[in-house]
Amino acid sequence: MANIKDIAKLAGVSVTTVSRVINGHPYVSTLKKEAVQRAMEMENYERNINAVHLSKGKTNLIGVVVPSIRRPYFGMVVEGIADEAIKDNYKLVLIQTNYEVEREMDALMMLKLKQIDALIICSKTSGWDVVEEYIQYGPIIILEDARGTKLSSIFIDHYQIFSNALAYLRSKGHHKIGYCLARRSSPNSARREAAYRDFYTNLQEDYDPNYIFYDCVHLEDGEWIMQRIVGMEDPPTALLVTSDQVAAGILTYCQENNIRVPEDLAIVGFDNQPIAKVLHITTFEIPIVEIGRKLFLKAIDGSHSHEEIPIHLIERLTV
Amino acid sequence: MANIKDIAKLAGVSVTTVSRVINGHPYVSTLKKEAVQRAMEMENYERNINAVHLSKGKTNLIGVVVPSIRRPYFGMVVEGIADEAIKDNYKLVLIQTNYEVEREMDALMMLKLKQIDALIICSKTSGWDVVEEYIQYGPIIILEDARGTKLSSIFIDHYQIFSNALAYLRSKGHHKIGYCLARRSSPNSARREAAYRDFYTNLQEDYDPNYIFYDCVHLEDGEWIMQRIVGMEDPPTALLVTSDQVAAGILTYCQENNIRVPEDLAIVGFDNQPIAKVLHITTFEIPIVEIGRKLFLKAIDGSHSHEEIPIHLIERLTV
Repeated sequence: MANIKDIAKLAGVSVTTVSRVINGHPYVSTLKKEAVQRAMEMENYERNINAVHLSKGKTNLIGVVVPSIRRPYFGMVVEGIADEAIKDNYKLVLIQTNYEVEREMDALMMLKLKQIDALIICSKTSGWDVVEEYIQYGPIIILEDARGTKLSSIFIDHYQIFSNALAYLRSKGHHKIGYCLARRSSPNSARREAAYRDFYTNLQEDYDPNYIFYDCVHLEDGEWIMQRIVGMEDPPTALLVTSDQVAAGILTYCQENNIRVPEDLAIVGFDNQPIAKVLHITTFEIPIVEIGRKLFLKAIDGSHSHEEIPIHLIERLTV
Repeated sequence: MANIKDIAKLAGVSVTTVSRVINGHPYVSTLKKEAVQRAMEMENYERNINAVHLSKGKTNLIGVVVPSIRRPYFGMVVEGIADEAIKDNYKLVLIQTNYEVEREMDALMMLKLKQIDALIICSKTSGWDVVEEYIQYGPIIILEDARGTKLSSIFIDHYQIFSNALAYLRSKGHHKIGYCLARRSSPNSARREAAYRDFYTNLQEDYDPNYIFYDCVHLEDGEWIMQRIVGMEDPPTALLVTSDQVAAGILTYCQENNIRVPEDLAIVGFDNQPIAKVLHITTFEIPIVEIGRKLFLKAIDGSHSHEEIPIHLIERLTV
């Protein structure tokens, strides 16, 4: 089989040029590129890329851990990562965990075994100590507040945003405020719960634990949430809903069941997804695609840092 | 550095057992697995997975080409692929092309360079002849009617479904039927256009080319589509919309602008996504996640075959 020198000779270019063509280097003239490609075709040259990895110690693959690619939030994060990865000639290895610790360990092992150059974790299940052990094998960047750990992070201050949202609803006259979260056990949920408890403690008021809903993830979840609220003797007058999808499901249920929004029930969503724009849902804008881009850039940068993403309220018609 | 024999000795197990643990083989007792892992930790054993690829010629990676991961349709296909891949200890390399031929070529090159074991193409831009050239390097499975080519395919008969949809709307009294497609240049669009032309030709009737809309992809596209329809002297009375997202955007615009659905405008969506259920949109159910699973199974099966996926109409309130 022809080696790289044979190809260079046949194409009439240097070995460096052949190497550049093979590795997708941008600064090669079209003429030389075509000459190399013709030579490779003629010699039926098949580089075994894994051999190249061995010599370079680099795969140009970035691992991305997501619970579920189907949820628009994570789909948009991955889109941002993928948009940026393309520019730098990286590809993504997608690890869908469905919050199973074993899948997360798979991803960490890929980093250890040098199957990927870096790992982006969009939502994690394992403890910090477990993940931190793997930082010796390559950059790990997490979409969660990781200040105080060895990991790098892009994060949103969920405590502060939830506090602001509660104060905003209070300023609109709401006292009975409920909230809808996705996973009960997540660190993000813990921060939001803390903000909620602190808010009512500071006011020296009680809150009704029935106003708190977990496992609210999809559009369809709006239905059971509202069925429970409709059945309450003393229902909440406002809901903080940490997904625009769920907020849209709640709003649609209200529209079909003559529950006036915001008069009977005010709704605040999160993310500012297209559905929030179309249905005029008041929501906190989270620049999800932009966050994805930042996660990728931090992954290939490799330095240890933390960055908070500022979030803004977009007032529409549901409060 | 310790080799696999050193680890086996230290752990008191056979080399085969160590190999099984490293490769995630399911039939290893927890006791032996832990012994091997302890030994590996003690020796700080780092298998270079790329060396393993060289010896096995297998990466356990499957390439997945999607135009955009953000579109719920493709997000759901990838979810199905990922669900099935997890079971067989495969991971996905995601190649988001945004319909750029170069990105597609990147993916095909990955197959040629043995960076992936097989390639799944969810929507393609290159010609059949280009893609067929790469079948010699590994299985290529496409979510498109590839009968008559060397590729394997899972496909939907878009001509037949569009014909059925048109006949259904006709049976409901509609003569002025328009449609909304995503990409004008895609093979799926071509089949749907052919079905539409044939439908009106067979009826010996003319159709208004203004009833045909392209680049309809996102929820927000419903707005400009409806603004154009509202401006028509003789608007269509029914629309076939090849995405539930766009159908939802159209429906929402109608609800806010006192256009009665289905009296003034009937809407038929495609996919049966959650938003179609929640908004009661009549739609063709496409088992997208299931299709993803099938794509993966065909990718690792490697045999050459074609499978048509049957599609059903779900009647709700928009026709």
